[in-house]
Amino acid sequence: MDIDQFRREAHAAVDWMADYLRDVGERRVVTDAKPGDIKRRLPAVPPEQPEPFARVMADFKEIIVPGMTHWNHPGWFAYFPANNSPPSILAEMLTATLGAQCMSWQTSPAATELEQVVMDWLRQLVGLPSTFHGVIQDTASTSTLVALLTARERATKFAFGRRGAGADHAAQLTVYASREAHSSVVKGVKLAGYGTDNLRLIDTDASFAMRPDALAVAIDADVRAGRVPACVVATVGTTSSAGVDPLPAICDVAAPHGAWVHVDGAYGGSAGIIPEKRELLRGLERADSFVFNPHKWLFTNFDCSAYFVRDVEALLHTFQASAEYLKTAHDAEVVNFRDWGIQLGRRFRALKLWFVMRTYGAEGLRARVREHLRLAQLFRGWVAASPDFELLAPTHLSLVCFRARPGNGAHAEADLDALNERLLVEINRSGRVYLTHTRLNGRYTLRMAIGQTNTDEAHVRTVWDLAQSALEALT
Amino acid sequence: MDIDQFRREAHAAVDWMADYLRDVGERRVVTDAKPGDIKRRLPAVPPEQPEPFARVMADFKEIIVPGMTHWNHPGWFAYFPANNSPPSILAEMLTATLGAQCMSWQTSPAATELEQVVMDWLRQLVGLPSTFHGVIQDTASTSTLVALLTARERATKFAFGRRGAGADHAAQLTVYASREAHSSVVKGVKLAGYGTDNLRLIDTDASFAMRPDALAVAIDADVRAGRVPACVVATVGTTSSAGVDPLPAICDVAAPHGAWVHVDGAYGGSAGIIPEKRELLRGLERADSFVFNPHKWLFTNFDCSAYFVRDVEALLHTFQASAEYLKTAHDAEVVNFRDWGIQLGRRFRALKLWFVMRTYGAEGLRARVREHLRLAQLFRGWVAASPDFELLAPTHLSLVCFRARPGNGAHAEADLDALNERLLVEINRSGRVYLTHTRLNGRYTLRMAIGQTNTDEAHVRTVWDLAQSALEALT
Repeated sequence: MDIDQFRREAHAAVDWMADYLRDVGERRVVTDAKPGDIKRRLPAVPPEQPEPFARVMADFKEIIVPGMTHWNHPGWFAYFPANNSPPSILAEMLTATLGAQCMSWQTSPAATELEQVVMDWLRQLVGLPSTFHGVIQDTASTSTLVALLTARERATKFAFGRRGAGADHAAQLTVYASREAHSSVVKGVKLAGYGTDNLRLIDTDASFAMRPDALAVAIDADVRAGRVPACVVATVGTTSSAGVDPLPAICDVAAPHGAWVHVDGAYGGSAGIIPEKRELLRGLERADSFVFNPHKWLFTNFDCSAYFVRDVEALLHTFQASAEYLKTAHDAEVVNFRDWGIQLGRRFRALKLWFVMRTYGAEGLRARVREHLRLAQLFRGWVAASPDFELLAPTHLSLVCFRARPGNGAHAEADLDALNERLLVEINRSGRVYLTHTRLNGRYTLRMAIGQTNTDEAHVRTVWDLAQSALEALT
Repeated sequence: MDIDQFRREAHAAVDWMADYLRDVGERRVVTDAKPGDIKRRLPAVPPEQPEPFARVMADFKEIIVPGMTHWNHPGWFAYFPANNSPPSILAEMLTATLGAQCMSWQTSPAATELEQVVMDWLRQLVGLPSTFHGVIQDTASTSTLVALLTARERATKFAFGRRGAGADHAAQLTVYASREAHSSVVKGVKLAGYGTDNLRLIDTDASFAMRPDALAVAIDADVRAGRVPACVVATVGTTSSAGVDPLPAICDVAAPHGAWVHVDGAYGGSAGIIPEKRELLRGLERADSFVFNPHKWLFTNFDCSAYFVRDVEALLHTFQASAEYLKTAHDAEVVNFRDWGIQLGRRFRALKLWFVMRTYGAEGLRARVREHLRLAQLFRGWVAASPDFELLAPTHLSLVCFRARPGNGAHAEADLDALNERLLVEINRSGRVYLTHTRLNGRYTLRMAIGQTNTDEAHVRTVWDLAQSALEALT
């Protein structure tokens, strides 16, 4: 494909893209494709000869797009959102064109310095002190693994990475997180070599927040048994219910033991840009590291995970790897972000964050997040006022956890689980909205996660209407 | 930014993109920006109010682009390439627009099934048997870490992830790679918790390939000392010199010990699409895992790393993490790629690979790679025939390792190092081409890595002309 053809095809693609963004709300959020439906339509062997691009694009439109789950549909209330926005997409177009690999300053000076600048902008927006330094990782699961690895190294005076399982203390390290912590904490503990047997899942209170007294008991028991508390992972906005762990009390408990405190705010952290919500992040300045995902709730294309760390030396000591072929003339005076995480190769992710922050402005970002918070309270109010539904968790942020409970209590719990499972299927069957589930205190729970860039009151109202009519049909 | 403005801005961006791709060869490959130059031009605080997009785009063009290292310049001979191509950029535009997060089948059915299909196409193209199953990772460093973690778990009967450093054998695990293996192996051994003390760097032969006899000696010594050889990392196309480890002999040595054999073909693996070069991958069918990067030498935007594994059960056992909120109705009948690696969240990377393979066709891809191989032999011939330069490694692939040695031997080694270091600076100072260095047998070595999508004979000739005239000026 030569440049002239690229220009023509790219202009045509832009028109498709703009149409898609305009009309995505008319599509089914979730495809009705069944497993194997897509694969069946694709050849099992690669083409030997070039195919005309028109055929490739036609297959994209006819086979791929109808088989997608549309994360940027305004009726998206599932999981947490993975948003994009027009300025973010524009930046991704430019990023793909430059095709830079941003492992070091030398290989992309502007990308490296822009990353430093925009991460510092983000730091200011969420109210973190300047003792924190930012780097863009791909996902919160990676960021949490980075924190766990750094904590592992710090707790063993950097001997685990050198001597492995035979290092002093290596076999005694323990990690703490609440029972509501994200699955990536369990996975990270496993991958980092702590062993899941050495992860203590701490009880939560009625609001699904970690109980600092229970954390203290667990740490004390481990210390008495000769173990070394290496890391506490606190969560601001748990995945199941948006629970918020009490950071000041957790830091109080962790500090005397020198345990690394990592705060997983993958979803909830974005609320830090709203001054009236910043209370949820109180104590964060005492943590060792913090992650939140602009790709979740700050209108920036996946992947873009903001990782902030105080002890940059410990981070570098954990991740730096040298090789003659990577040395550059400027290494002593610049930041090489390849040493700030797992991967050597890095995309130019700072550009989209820059485009988004400038195009929305801080006030524009706050306005969108505030509207999502308002919609969550609106939906919460409808559930609270209904005799047939109930709330299953507080609504601190933009996630509402609820279920049907017709006639207020006439059903056994097992029946309610089955009923709500069917209710969710019915709501989603409409294709107009998409919600997912969790379990809270063992109860099957519908999660209404409000945060898609273009969600407005009408989409939230649609869920409520669908929930009510589906319940009527089911009972 | 509303949809109408997005459409206008995106059309304007496309014209900039096409112009950039057409003219990038006229730019300086490496910017003359100094550390801090970019940062100095960017505000230290984020904007409160939205800024006009025209100003954002103007800053991109005036501040960012001139401060970039241009990886897609046809004069790119540094490191290994990170290529893009018109169809790949088109796919990235569409991927950004869909904005899907492809952690599971349910969250992106078409993306998941397309990934299965294109990875099987790639498997066929490089001649891997169907016992291998593919997944797209972000980078080869991640893929190698995935292999090392899986090997760790298999060697401890999956006890390391559960019991940590206290598991049986955890403290005795050893890993093997050649002295020329990539820095990501050392980093992965550290992060996976083996400990770098337990990594044996095996001697290489005159062609910088691992010596299987030395591997056997090292493994035997460890086994006699009660250690457990968990993993051997072999390389097809080392970073310094494109050395190729002898896979059949390595598998012969590793097999009796049950060690996992991972093959790092990050750069070299792409040569597998050329039947006459497939000899370099002989024995690969006996390995446990294999990584190569279509983002290096297959014209697909970074990031796109192809990881192939035989024992999918061991992989899943290592990476699977369950959580109620991740369960879907289809889990029993589909592949959820989130369980095939470190990250939970995943971009839709299969689309660009599909666009590239179809738009070029297998023959088109082979033609480009063959041309790069031809150019490497051409450049190699010039060096070999010159009285003032010498080759420092065999040229199996498209990397030529050379240095100046005026008058064939009149200089001491230390003087030659200093001379070649200055020579590299001089060549790159032109801004027309970009080469980087390494050390081979302690000698400062210029690396001429030919593989940028649009590199042709004239660009290769330019390097040779610059090298000769720079040497003349320096001596």
